[in-house]
Order: sequence, then structure tokens, then C-alpha cells
Amino acid sequence: MKKVGHADVTGSSPEGTEGVDFRALLAEDVDPPNFYMRVFDVSPGGHTPKHRHDWEHEVYVARGSPKIVLESGEVRLIPGDAVYVEPNELHQFVNDGNSIVRFVCVIPRPKK
Amino acid sequence: MKKVGHADVTGSSPEGTEGVDFRALLAEDVDPPNFYMRVFDVSPGGHTPKHRHDWEHEVYVARGSPKIVLESGEVRLIPGDAVYVEPNELHQFVNDGNSIVRFVCVIPRPKK
Repeated sequence: MKKVGHADVTGSSPEGTEGVDFRALLAEDVDPPNFYMRVFDVSPGGHTPKHRHDWEHEVYVARGSPKIVLESGEVRLIPGDAVYVEPNELHQFVNDGNSIVRFVCVIPRPKK
Repeated sequence: MKKVGHADVTGSSPEGTEGVDFRALLAEDVDPPNFYMRVFDVSPGGHTPKHRHDWEHEVYVARGSPKIVLESGEVRLIPGDAVYVEPNELHQFVNDGNSIVRFVCVIPRPKK
């Protein structure tokens, strides 16, 4: 068993994000075999990049009420929602509210 | 994109659990390609089975402060902690506190 607390990892702001504190909790350092677990804190007014890529996301909204922006429009999320974003689907998470948004985002382990 | 809210799924109590409300948010119905995302709510005094299996867990503690029981002893968890449980590692999540525990548990997609 390996435990990684939120404070055990240094936050970063990946390219294309604004107002984001990103922490890869179960990733390279832990080296899990199949998927990586990361956490995004998004400040009010902040967002992730509007982009697409060939791997899926599985997201769990732990706190706050972001919207997800898609090609087809926007969908409001609330705490407790889980979201599956398909490979190659355009997507962006936006915090247009007044309180912090926290979501867990799981991706396949990157191929070496 | 597929969104599944906590209230969209009926809770169940898997064999060996006590005081557990289990919801498979991103699983068979959504049919994601690589991993499934499930949520456990554990009432005070409740627990998951003490067991092992040949797939890993990646767990995120969203609420409450459970302990994880391992062969080597017990480890206290707090909200924001992520835990990697190795394949074939004995493990159990126990809520020995006074408030509800909620954790997200991701597993590899079961082989058909």
C-alpha cells in the first residue's frame, strides 16, 4: 500500500490552465500499473485547457460546481457527479462559481 | 461525455460489507474502456470486506477519516489522501469514526 496525501505533492499549473493547482497523487512516483489518479483544484474564474487527446478521462467532482464545456455545449456538474470524457472528445472544466472546485481525474497510465 | 450523478445509481451493499452504500458510477452501464470508478459511503461502525484480489485499487478519500487495515497494521486516512493498494494485497476500509466516510475506488475494467 502506498498513501499519498494532498500535501505530500507539490502543486503545479499545467500549460493552458488558469487558477489551477494540479497534483498527481498516484502517478510516476507510485508507478501504478494501469491508471493514474490526479487532483485538480480550480479557483473561481479558473479553468483547464480546452483541448482533446486520445485518452479518456474519468472525473469525480469532490467539491464545488464546475461546468464542463464540450463541442455540443455546456453541462453543469455538482459534487458527487462522475464524468466519462471519451478519447478525442473536446473538453474543458471551468469554475464559473464563487467557491473552489476540486475534482479527481483518472487517466490511463501513459505508454512509455 | 457521459455524466452519472450519485443519485442516478441505486446503492447496494456488496457481500462482506457492513454499513456500506456502494455505487458503481462509471462501470458496466457507461462501459469505459480501461477502468471503472465506484463510490463507497461507509457509515460509522461500517467496513468493507477484509480481502485480497488480483487487481489493484486506487482510492481517493473524499470525506471522513477511515482507517485502512493491512497485513502489516492499520493506517489512518484523511480527506484528500490517495491510496494505491497493490494486486493481491490484503486490505479493508473501516469507519471507526463518528461521521460518514466517502471514498472513490477505481479498479481496472474486469476482463470478459
